[in-house]
Amino acid sequence: MHNDTICAPATAPGGALGIIRISGPQAFAAVSAICSVHCDTVAANTVHYTHIVSPLPSEERGETLVDEVMVSVFRAPRSYTGEDSVEISCHGSSYILNKVLALLIENGCRMARPGEFTMRAFLNGKMDLSQAEAVADLIASTNRATHQIALSQLRGHFSGELSQLRQQLLELTSLLELELDFSDHEDLEFADRSQLLHLAQHIDDRITALAATFETGQAIKTGIPVAIVGKTNVGKSTLLNRLLRDERAIVSDIHGTTRDTIEDVINIQGVAFRFIDTAGIRQTSDAIEQIGIDRTFQAISRARIVLWLLDEEPTAEEQKDIESRCQGKSLIIVSNKSDKGVLVADSAIVIPHSSFLSISAKHGQGIEALEAAIYSAANLPDLRGSDVIVTSARHHEALVRAHDDLQRVLDGLVHQLPGDLVAEDLHLVLSDLAQITGVNQIITSQETLNHIFSHYCVGK
Amino acid sequence: MHNDTICAPATAPGGALGIIRISGPQAFAAVSAICSVHCDTVAANTVHYTHIVSPLPSEERGETLVDEVMVSVFRAPRSYTGEDSVEISCHGSSYILNKVLALLIENGCRMARPGEFTMRAFLNGKMDLSQAEAVADLIASTNRATHQIALSQLRGHFSGELSQLRQQLLELTSLLELELDFSDHEDLEFADRSQLLHLAQHIDDRITALAATFETGQAIKTGIPVAIVGKTNVGKSTLLNRLLRDERAIVSDIHGTTRDTIEDVINIQGVAFRFIDTAGIRQTSDAIEQIGIDRTFQAISRARIVLWLLDEEPTAEEQKDIESRCQGKSLIIVSNKSDKGVLVADSAIVIPHSSFLSISAKHGQGIEALEAAIYSAANLPDLRGSDVIVTSARHHEALVRAHDDLQRVLDGLVHQLPGDLVAEDLHLVLSDLAQITGVNQIITSQETLNHIFSHYCVGK
Repeated sequence: MHNDTICAPATAPGGALGIIRISGPQAFAAVSAICSVHCDTVAANTVHYTHIVSPLPSEERGETLVDEVMVSVFRAPRSYTGEDSVEISCHGSSYILNKVLALLIENGCRMARPGEFTMRAFLNGKMDLSQAEAVADLIASTNRATHQIALSQLRGHFSGELSQLRQQLLELTSLLELELDFSDHEDLEFADRSQLLHLAQHIDDRITALAATFETGQAIKTGIPVAIVGKTNVGKSTLLNRLLRDERAIVSDIHGTTRDTIEDVINIQGVAFRFIDTAGIRQTSDAIEQIGIDRTFQAISRARIVLWLLDEEPTAEEQKDIESRCQGKSLIIVSNKSDKGVLVADSAIVIPHSSFLSISAKHGQGIEALEAAIYSAANLPDLRGSDVIVTSARHHEALVRAHDDLQRVLDGLVHQLPGDLVAEDLHLVLSDLAQITGVNQIITSQETLNHIFSHYCVGK
Repeated sequence: MHNDTICAPATAPGGALGIIRISGPQAFAAVSAICSVHCDTVAANTVHYTHIVSPLPSEERGETLVDEVMVSVFRAPRSYTGEDSVEISCHGSSYILNKVLALLIENGCRMARPGEFTMRAFLNGKMDLSQAEAVADLIASTNRATHQIALSQLRGHFSGELSQLRQQLLELTSLLELELDFSDHEDLEFADRSQLLHLAQHIDDRITALAATFETGQAIKTGIPVAIVGKTNVGKSTLLNRLLRDERAIVSDIHGTTRDTIEDVINIQGVAFRFIDTAGIRQTSDAIEQIGIDRTFQAISRARIVLWLLDEEPTAEEQKDIESRCQGKSLIIVSNKSDKGVLVADSAIVIPHSSFLSISAKHGQGIEALEAAIYSAANLPDLRGSDVIVTSARHHEALVRAHDDLQRVLDGLVHQLPGDLVAEDLHLVLSDLAQITGVNQIITSQETLNHIFSHYCVGK
């Protein structure tokens, strides 16, 4: 438990209501000193109407009313932080909020640092570190995908996976240590090394799989990058506008109008896709336009999905060019201007592993099918299930370190290194994974905690 | 009671927490449908930790978690609106807030209009109209003065005054009606008309006094206007900067630098003063500067307080000029540059009803005394007391109408008009005052209510 009591506004300025949070051993005393609610004696989890009053300067005596408020009382350990906590719901005036905070500070509280309430929840064992980090992601979530991933992490699905891995690592360690204890009995073989190797390989597969979800996690967080490419005047900006349903990009009939890459984000089935409109690809003598075309190729390299827009059948050479540039990406070939007839026959496309659709960006035909194809091309895991997706660079780093340390364990087992050396590396792996959840609080340094929680908003 | 149930976010977007308010006959049913709290059966004024869940599309069955929340339950009539009400405290993500609102709407609620919770509080008799209007002022309050006035109005001080006036008017009416009932008994004189006249005059004095506070109320709301005038280079901008404690105005040694009037607001003892720096007053051939000087005289006419800054003794003619321009204003004569010695002797000033101070704007000497003089010159009522200050143009109009109608009552009494005619005018006065508190809800039209509450924020 902490000795100091913290307070902070938990709501953004400018609303009808403003909430002030107080947590710590003096929370009840501080609140009771400025209103008529006896926090110590009222039932936990009850709400009370009361007046916040401020004493007049000592020479005048008496007190002045600050606000009519609702006070909610939560008793340790059944509170967000695990400490005695109070929430004061005031009228949302900045003057009133500041006045109430000043009164709380006069009565022994101090202003909370960003994320300090959640940090206390972690330090008091109300949640592990990965769950605490999910709180910030949840508050920042703006679509179904980021919301579901944060909520799944807050609900402990990631922690559960890590806890299983920890169990398996501890099993491996104890088998190795058993081997050590009886190492002078040369005739005894307690742990079959090939069996240990099998278990370690299984753990590493899972760690690698978790680490691999980070690319998807990052893409979902920042928007899955989709490049729209194609020759000039094929309708790229029109398609983008159709998808964005606004006039973000400039549309014109003049060849080579779009010179800058324009990015915007649209939601498809609750997932953010970051669309990158690009300059048309064609031979040009215009230097500025050439820069735009170079950027198009850069955009392809950054994209996860490429939409290749056509209004005539591409040559074999063009197909080969795109195919080589789109290695490792999902390629969707889109024949535009379907209102003008069949401009590109499905059979004319010879690129393998690509999908083909026909649309009219101008008339809105085939757009829903295209959106479904884009969502499918993103190849996302089931976001509603309990599949774990790593979104934090800190977690990803820890997983990569765990994988590296586990490689040395595997090498040691393969090369029949002494059990104590292998066990040492195994302890490193355990420590790597423990960094993610902070399961053993001793190993999480104050700097790490400060760094993690400094990105929170105040009041959480 | 209303038949429909309303919901709205009560906090501004972007905080750690977001509060959604629900009020109306379906509030409990709607909330119970989306979480595990049985609002109907839990104790009133209790807070419950629960999960908000959203059903999956019907073909999939099951449900998906939206957020972990705290639900506070308030039972009619002991709630803000007087209806069954619930507050849901979610994580402050716009996605989550929208999702919860959508779920509530699916379960029979509708989005609240601005101020609709407070309008219901009024319609259900939880507060009168002037108190309901004070809620919006309280939320908007940014300093001690606006806060105290709004809070005093919310606490019913204005309503109390009006209720007293109403009692006295009813007494007057009943005396007149008594006279009517017995008017055929010519020998009976029930009401001494001079006594009635005295009572009516007393009521009118109070109404006039209340109406007169509107000028102060408006000034406090928008900032009490203070013009700083004086010759060029006398240090007006330096003084303004000193008062503002920042570099809002351009300071320079070149004569006539300040050509535009610059306004900024500073807090003195919790009251906002709106300072108007002006171009220097001097004879000039520069046309643009002349416009600035003309604006200076306009600034004086708009000001309540004029600071006349000097660094040499003014001529008798100059004093006469300022005196005539400052009729009805509080004039503070300030001798600047006190660090250079006594530049203006107190005895040299012959303008009556002005105060005189010596300061050094550059070195910060005498600034506190000047601030005290400015506060005192504003001649404000005791804001901590229960003095009523009218801040609403709607209330002011109603008081002026009441005064006008009461004038006809007074005329009628003086000219011995028949009692029934006088009584008719008295009823008009009662109706004028009732408009302020909406004491008789029948006389407050729906349009008036909509107009009053449309200026609120949503969720209040």
